[in-house]
Amino acid sequence: MKPLYWKEGALYLLDQTLLPHKVHYLRLTDYRDVVAAIKRLSVRGAPAIGVAAAYALVLAAQEAAKSSLQIFWEKLEEAASALAAARPTAVNLQWAVRRQMKVAARHREEGPEAVVAALEREARAMQEEDVRTNRAIGAYGAALLPFRARVLTHCNAGSLATCGYGTALGVIRAAHAAGKIAMVYADETRPLLQGARLTTWELLQEGIPVTLITDSTAGYLMARGEIDAVIVGADRIAANGDVANKIGTYTLAVLARHHKIPFYVAAPFSTVDLETPKGEAIPIEERGEEEVTHCGGVRIAPEGVKARNFAFDVTPAELITAIITERGVVYPPLGENLRLFAQHQREEEGD
Amino acid sequence: MKPLYWKEGALYLLDQTLLPHKVHYLRLTDYRDVVAAIKRLSVRGAPAIGVAAAYALVLAAQEAAKSSLQIFWEKLEEAASALAAARPTAVNLQWAVRRQMKVAARHREEGPEAVVAALEREARAMQEEDVRTNRAIGAYGAALLPFRARVLTHCNAGSLATCGYGTALGVIRAAHAAGKIAMVYADETRPLLQGARLTTWELLQEGIPVTLITDSTAGYLMARGEIDAVIVGADRIAANGDVANKIGTYTLAVLARHHKIPFYVAAPFSTVDLETPKGEAIPIEERGEEEVTHCGGVRIAPEGVKARNFAFDVTPAELITAIITERGVVYPPLGENLRLFAQHQREEEGD
Repeated sequence: MKPLYWKEGALYLLDQTLLPHKVHYLRLTDYRDVVAAIKRLSVRGAPAIGVAAAYALVLAAQEAAKSSLQIFWEKLEEAASALAAARPTAVNLQWAVRRQMKVAARHREEGPEAVVAALEREARAMQEEDVRTNRAIGAYGAALLPFRARVLTHCNAGSLATCGYGTALGVIRAAHAAGKIAMVYADETRPLLQGARLTTWELLQEGIPVTLITDSTAGYLMARGEIDAVIVGADRIAANGDVANKIGTYTLAVLARHHKIPFYVAAPFSTVDLETPKGEAIPIEERGEEEVTHCGGVRIAPEGVKARNFAFDVTPAELITAIITERGVVYPPLGENLRLFAQHQREEEGD
Repeated sequence: MKPLYWKEGALYLLDQTLLPHKVHYLRLTDYRDVVAAIKRLSVRGAPAIGVAAAYALVLAAQEAAKSSLQIFWEKLEEAASALAAARPTAVNLQWAVRRQMKVAARHREEGPEAVVAALEREARAMQEEDVRTNRAIGAYGAALLPFRARVLTHCNAGSLATCGYGTALGVIRAAHAAGKIAMVYADETRPLLQGARLTTWELLQEGIPVTLITDSTAGYLMARGEIDAVIVGADRIAANGDVANKIGTYTLAVLARHHKIPFYVAAPFSTVDLETPKGEAIPIEERGEEEVTHCGGVRIAPEGVKARNFAFDVTPAELITAIITERGVVYPPLGENLRLFAQHQREEEGD
């Protein structure tokens, strides 16, 4: 099940807000509708929203190509800004937009039609790259798990959060293929229940054993000795190795440390933001109170009550056992090793 | 708002499963209906279910009094067993039943009508005692909090969980009266959302500032320095000071320790079970999977997914700063000091 695909000049997005009850793809031809879909979480997950934004820029360029050349670039810049600002925490959104705008600039002299074509090629490349990246993450991560592992994951860092296979769930998929998974415990992940709605759905479809728990149950399962490893995704990794991810991730990291259980973060290198020195500099999105006062569309709290709704939290590097990337496993000291990995990548690319 | 009252031979129970949307009292005249109401959590909270069981024994005795003397005692014993077994974790249920059966035995010679009258008097006494007990807990606990305290609580240990005033919320009420409360953060407490539905509702009614958060948000608020103390209730306290309480309590205790925030348990002495040596001997209720696969009556998880639903967890004594009781604050070493408090109580009662 793909979260998105491109067909004949339109972006099709699986509306994840309707899962697991209904499988419905939105057909979008206006980049503004993609911005709205990202904001309301029809598409979510750091890698997936990056690729969605890359395709949205194709839509924006198609539209702008109908205008004069001067206005073409103004409109494209406008779309780029709107997309990059759709959600603040996941850096992949800004990374994808920046990458596309570089591609556009390279084809500037050839005119708008060539820019549109180049953006479409690049978006497709990013989509295919993402799946390859996830498979590499899966292979590196699976090697870290013991046989008969009981693994806890939070939110959804699976096929639905990427362009297929997944980051944290990619590790679980690869480990399952290697016969290593005894049980996946999926935190339901309030307020929007991505664990209950999406992670269990993905794993059930592939016959990977999964048990749903409330977010509060994770600590007790650890105390009972029923968790061997925690694996989560990431929305942004600061230069020092601090990780922003779905609210509740930090709590799992503290619990894992208390119980001496390894705590792994699985993410593509595009999630690493070397320009953000540490976690406290990562902007944390606060979303509407109604996500907390309601559940599954039903009001649960009394009228008039205040709520706080941080969509993400920050896990400090010192609580992370390792970061699993497509270029290998990054061990502590995370800040130093992330820098070395990035340097090596730049050297390979001859940058 | 009282969770229960007795009037003209019937027990009236506020059906807490309907809160905060609807205030409706069930009128019960059959003890079996009280057992069912306790099981489905129409009445919940360790002290409240104790008193509900005490009144249910009056109903059972009224019914049994219509039979022969031989059958009267058989029926009363049968009711006592059913009530004590309605839920396994909270010891107050067994404590209340045992206390009532002692009262019944003391009046054995006077015949069934006298037993009924004695049970009713004792149930009323327990109800009134509970409120006095909570006020004493509140006074002792309020003294422990700093001014402008931002306090985190979990589940509902308030008026609705007791016969009025509350244990953890009793401390918060007393602290608020002393001008000490800047903000109460209420964990929503999945799966049954007692925090979102009951705690916010109680505090809103009294004008005590309250903010609702998802259970996963507590750790991040602590990391941000926004929590000064955690206060929770208890369903059973083992002889060594280990505490069984609503699932998620243990996680808060681990988080509080990590952040060097005091973690208080507020409970009447009737929650202390000196016959259970430590937490691992406390039976932990597992409830139906549908409480996790659904939320607010709506299915959230895909069909066919497994779920685990522990209603409680165990917090080891070493993570608890102090236990606040009606007889004073019990500090570590909790096991030793609980024993001394109990010994002192027995001496006072000349037992």
